[in-house]
Parts: sequence; structure tokens; C-alpha cells
Amino acid sequence: MAVRSIKLTVQYDGSRYHGWQIQPGRKTIQGELVEAVSSLVGTRTHVHGASRTDAGVSALGQVALFEIDSPIPTENFAEAISGRLPPDIVVTAAEEAPRKFDLMGGPKSKLYRYTIYTGPHRPVLQLNQCWHVPRKLDVDPMSRAAQRLVGTNDFKSFATAKDKREQTVRTIFRCEVTAEDEWIYVDVEGDAFLYNMVRNIVGTLVEVGAGRWTPEKIPEILEAKNRTAAGPLAPAAGLCLMWIKY
Amino acid sequence: MAVRSIKLTVQYDGSRYHGWQIQPGRKTIQGELVEAVSSLVGTRTHVHGASRTDAGVSALGQVALFEIDSPIPTENFAEAISGRLPPDIVVTAAEEAPRKFDLMGGPKSKLYRYTIYTGPHRPVLQLNQCWHVPRKLDVDPMSRAAQRLVGTNDFKSFATAKDKREQTVRTIFRCEVTAEDEWIYVDVEGDAFLYNMVRNIVGTLVEVGAGRWTPEKIPEILEAKNRTAAGPLAPAAGLCLMWIKY
Repeated sequence: MAVRSIKLTVQYDGSRYHGWQIQPGRKTIQGELVEAVSSLVGTRTHVHGASRTDAGVSALGQVALFEIDSPIPTENFAEAISGRLPPDIVVTAAEEAPRKFDLMGGPKSKLYRYTIYTGPHRPVLQLNQCWHVPRKLDVDPMSRAAQRLVGTNDFKSFATAKDKREQTVRTIFRCEVTAEDEWIYVDVEGDAFLYNMVRNIVGTLVEVGAGRWTPEKIPEILEAKNRTAAGPLAPAAGLCLMWIKY
Repeated sequence: MAVRSIKLTVQYDGSRYHGWQIQPGRKTIQGELVEAVSSLVGTRTHVHGASRTDAGVSALGQVALFEIDSPIPTENFAEAISGRLPPDIVVTAAEEAPRKFDLMGGPKSKLYRYTIYTGPHRPVLQLNQCWHVPRKLDVDPMSRAAQRLVGTNDFKSFATAKDKREQTVRTIFRCEVTAEDEWIYVDVEGDAFLYNMVRNIVGTLVEVGAGRWTPEKIPEILEAKNRTAAGPLAPAAGLCLMWIKY
């Protein structure tokens, strides 16, 4: 029968894994998915991911793709693959994708959420899903700083040097800071992201929230086109890939 | 100097531990606290707990007590002990208690919260803090059933047989079922609890929510004074000790 492309929506708690990308001898999300899908279809099957999330980063809407020539009905994949995955990874949806589906180049928009906890004591029940910053952060200037990042900009200052891509212009559609009790959420929606870009943005916004920088510092940082101009890298645990739209 | 009693408020994620009570060769919350306090005060120091939470049960308001004759100021204990604990246990408050403080017999009231998730897919980011019941539960009859448990009753039917206490009459001040999206919370406040009592209550309320029993079943179960009359034991992961009032 014809080869089919199956697109999966995947959720995971990244805390036990060495990131998305498969690596010999290490537990990774992609590695677990390859094992689960291969065991289901009965032949070694590669699984591609839309975003290579780092070690410790979680996802509620990662997108993955694999090809098979088995007759398994599409509607059975989510449950059948989930049953072969560890409890902290789950496939929530499966659908047939067009044969030329562009998994990595095709997304129109992605949303990342970063979670900060500002209470005095470490939050024992959410340790793996937040950055604990035990001090008051001023949300209003953080919010205004976030606004200055919206639009099409050269985000070279927010890319970890390891990112060797020549083209560092990206578009951020939305960058919002909201607070609820001692929790602060930074939602960043964009067309694509440089390496560590969201975490470098959050590290910078926290400098603003702590009063060390003003929102007017953002245009200066963008202008510098140099990683050292921005704030520190926020920890991986706070980051979650919420969804990817094609 | 005089011996002082220090009362601690302790929070923990119970998922990595074999419960509160110290056991040789196993990781327990009490064991970690004994290590931390002993290392701080420089001499082997026992730490008592107000509630012996089971393996997998979490707490946001456990109360613990120890005695010392060291001059360490009371206000330094929370941070100093927390710094010696694993990340998933934290001391949020320390205060001097009266010398005759009755840790286990003294509580006027305790609140437990039990969390149920009813969405179709396992909630990967909250796996250790809920019971996943992937079906619709009807909250209104659960709530009415919960009301029938309020008051002073013989709760023998809700005590795991392992509980050998003769006296099985307890008072529940409040038993409330609330829902938010796909989450259901059962809050049970009482003067004291039998072994597994809250988890047996929740297992029973889920039978009601699933339509297998009506709220009118509750008085029958209480009347039976037999564990087999009540619903199944709900898993430990959903349970959290919220606070203890003296």
C-alpha cells in the first residue's frame, strides 16, 4: 500500500529527558517515540519533530511526523502509541498529513509559555515546570519591555552563540507578561525561534522586573546584535512549547 | 541552655518517597528531615510528624516538631533546614512551640485536598499530583454525596482494614467537591482521619460521579461499618495534606 505520513501532537514533561533529539545511550523524547512507534508498526520507524526542545523543556503541543505503509487506522494511533510510551509522554492526537508536509519549515506560528514563581519558598509541586525567582518582580515594566520585542527584528542578541544560523531576523507576533498570585507567565508567539531565544528573552525581562533595567533597554539590546547585551539565560524548567500552527 | 521545641511547617512532593515515616534503607520525608536537622544542629535529632502521610502523598502544610538545646535563632531554621533538604522538600516556617505541645493529639482540624483529572489523555505535567479518571464525572451528585459525610459519624467503612484503632468515630467539618475545566477537587476537613479514609471517601465519590451509585448510598455505607461497603481506594498521587490547625 502507499506510504502515509502521520502527524502527531505530543505532550511531555521534559524533566527526566535529555531533550527532544535522539542520542545514543541517553533518554530523549524522540528516542522514546521511535521505540514506541517502531514497536507498534513492527519495523524501525524514524519520528521527526517540529521543534528540538532542550533538556528539561516540556511541551503541551509538540508536533511529530513519521511515515508508514501499514494499514493501521489513523484514529487508533494516539492511544496505541501512548500505551507504549512512559507515563510522562503522551500522544494526544494523530492525523494523516499531506505527503509533502513541511514539518520544520512549514509552521506559521508557535507559542511558548515561560513560567516564573516569585514566592519566597521553592514550589515543591511545580519544581520541574518553573523558574523560582524568590523576589518581587514588577510586572508592568516587564510587560512594556515585552511589547518592545514584538515585530520583525534581528534577534541576534537573544540567540545563544552556539546558534550558527546566518539569518537571525525573526517575527514575534505577541509577547505578553501576565501575573496570578506569585506566578508570572511570559507568552511568546512567533514564526520561528533562534536557539535559546525565549529563555534569553525571559532572562532579560526578569532583569527589567527586578528594576535593574528599564523597558527602554530592549531597543538597545536588539541594536547591539550581540548576545552579551541581553540578560542571562533563564533555566530550561520554566519553558513549555504550547502549540505549533501550520 | 533549656531544651526548646521547634515546630516546622513542611511542604513536599511525595512522589519520590516511601511516605513520611522513617524506614531503614528507604527514602522517606521524615528520614530526610532527620538528616537535615541533625546536620544543622550537629547532633542526631529526631523529628516527629503530625500526620504519617503514605507513599506518594504530598503536603503543603505538614507539621513537624523537634527538640534542641542549641542557641540557633528560631527565625533561621526554615532557610537553614531547607538548604540541607532535597529540592522536593522545603520548610516554609519555624516557630518555638510550648514544651508540652501535643503534635499528634492536639490538632483541632486538618484539611486534605484530593485532585482528579477527567480529561481523555494523561496529564503529563501533573502526573504525580492527581488521579487520572478519563471519563465524565457528574459533579453535582458527588457534591451531594460529600454533604452526607459531614458530621460526627462512625467511619469504619472508610478505614482500610489495616487500621486497628478501636475508636472509628470521627468528625468531618466540611467535604466539598468543586470542578474547574477537567479538574475536580475534593476538600475534606476533619478533626482526625482513619487510615486511608480520605482516599476511600474519594473512591466512593467517584462511583457516585460515574453514576454507579446515588448520594443516598452514603448513609448505607456508613451504617454498614464494613470496608467492603464503600468504593475502591483512590490512588495516593491525588492526595495532598493542605494544613493542620492547632
